[in-house]
Amino acid sequence: MNPLSDVRLVLLDVNETLSDTAALGAALTALGASAHLAPTWFAAVLRDGFALLAAGTPAPFADVARAAALTVLHGVVDDAALPGAADRLVAALGELPPHPDVAPGLRALAGAGLRLATLSHGSPAVAEAVLARAGVREHVERVVGVFDEAGTWKPAAAAYRHALDVCGTTPEQTLLVAVHPWDLHGAAQVGLRTAWVDRAGAPWPAVCTAPDVVVSDLGRLPAALGR
Amino acid sequence: MNPLSDVRLVLLDVNETLSDTAALGAALTALGASAHLAPTWFAAVLRDGFALLAAGTPAPFADVARAAALTVLHGVVDDAALPGAADRLVAALGELPPHPDVAPGLRALAGAGLRLATLSHGSPAVAEAVLARAGVREHVERVVGVFDEAGTWKPAAAAYRHALDVCGTTPEQTLLVAVHPWDLHGAAQVGLRTAWVDRAGAPWPAVCTAPDVVVSDLGRLPAALGR
Repeated sequence: MNPLSDVRLVLLDVNETLSDTAALGAALTALGASAHLAPTWFAAVLRDGFALLAAGTPAPFADVARAAALTVLHGVVDDAALPGAADRLVAALGELPPHPDVAPGLRALAGAGLRLATLSHGSPAVAEAVLARAGVREHVERVVGVFDEAGTWKPAAAAYRHALDVCGTTPEQTLLVAVHPWDLHGAAQVGLRTAWVDRAGAPWPAVCTAPDVVVSDLGRLPAALGR
Repeated sequence: MNPLSDVRLVLLDVNETLSDTAALGAALTALGASAHLAPTWFAAVLRDGFALLAAGTPAPFADVARAAALTVLHGVVDDAALPGAADRLVAALGELPPHPDVAPGLRALAGAGLRLATLSHGSPAVAEAVLARAGVREHVERVVGVFDEAGTWKPAAAAYRHALDVCGTTPEQTLLVAVHPWDLHGAAQVGLRTAWVDRAGAPWPAVCTAPDVVVSDLGRLPAALGR
């Protein structure tokens, strides 16, 4: 039996899953820094946010992102320009374009009768902005900001349970869709169904629970769900 | 009163605090990859390890490191060479040289009558190797591998509590020494004293509990402790 046959709600991660973080490289270049600092910074933001979560003291995403930006840009931009540069980099995260597959993919999912929501520990405003930019806000019934609403971050079990609560679905009815293996792993521990969007054709990390389905872009998700 | 006056045991982090990860750049270059991937990879290792910790399923450090190496090196080295390249990068983490301040710093701390131990979630063999390379293994009474011994990672409270248990000290008597703010933050939540080794003169991240003392290298720690 298809493990996804009961899925009624598609829960979408936001940063990197909907938004294209390649534009962060341009923001860094405009600050006089190397574009290759973008993945280092974004990994550091999640590293520090997860560390605070594991220490029992989760913090607002934007605060974690700004602190990591100050560290990564230290010695790269002048000390006097550092606070402004960190603010600019954090702001750039809220201005990212959607990946090209987001608009057709979300329209196809909605057209197949599936409910859609987003789930992130970042600001709901960032999720709203990328959905609006893709022109698909009307298809998404709820933008869940799990830090604002429940004081936690993914991949803690409480984050996924909060989403199930507010959306009124069971784990079997709920599909988490993300580019990040750690996110799908966390969702799988709570019993959600999982779809990995692997746009780069990267290998799945063996330390994470394998996803139920792998797609190369969001447009292939309805077929993977048998719709 | 000096908050560090009760300190009897100095608990040292290992990776980056004792070992110089700059050599990872050379390992990457030898694999035909850019040296600037080293901080991205190391941040990704901690990101993924902390995510698994927060999801309630901590994994062995070497497994997390290898999985992240496969992801970071994907598309950078040939697919056929990828497994061997990932193994080489993980092995390089166990062959890092100590920072130049480690040998004189640890000798001075031991000479001041302080007990010394290490605390890491990595392999104890990696800690043993860097201490041996610095010629200071004899001054360190215990190498605590918190995943091997207690199935957890820093910065979970259980990791620091395990160290207190096996070393037989109170939080007030125990100083965690690290370059990583998230580590000092986690220790502070359990009541340990904290010393930040800030070799780069970087800004302290505002999302973390401030350390009791900041030193630019380990050689300055005895004076900071009033010894």
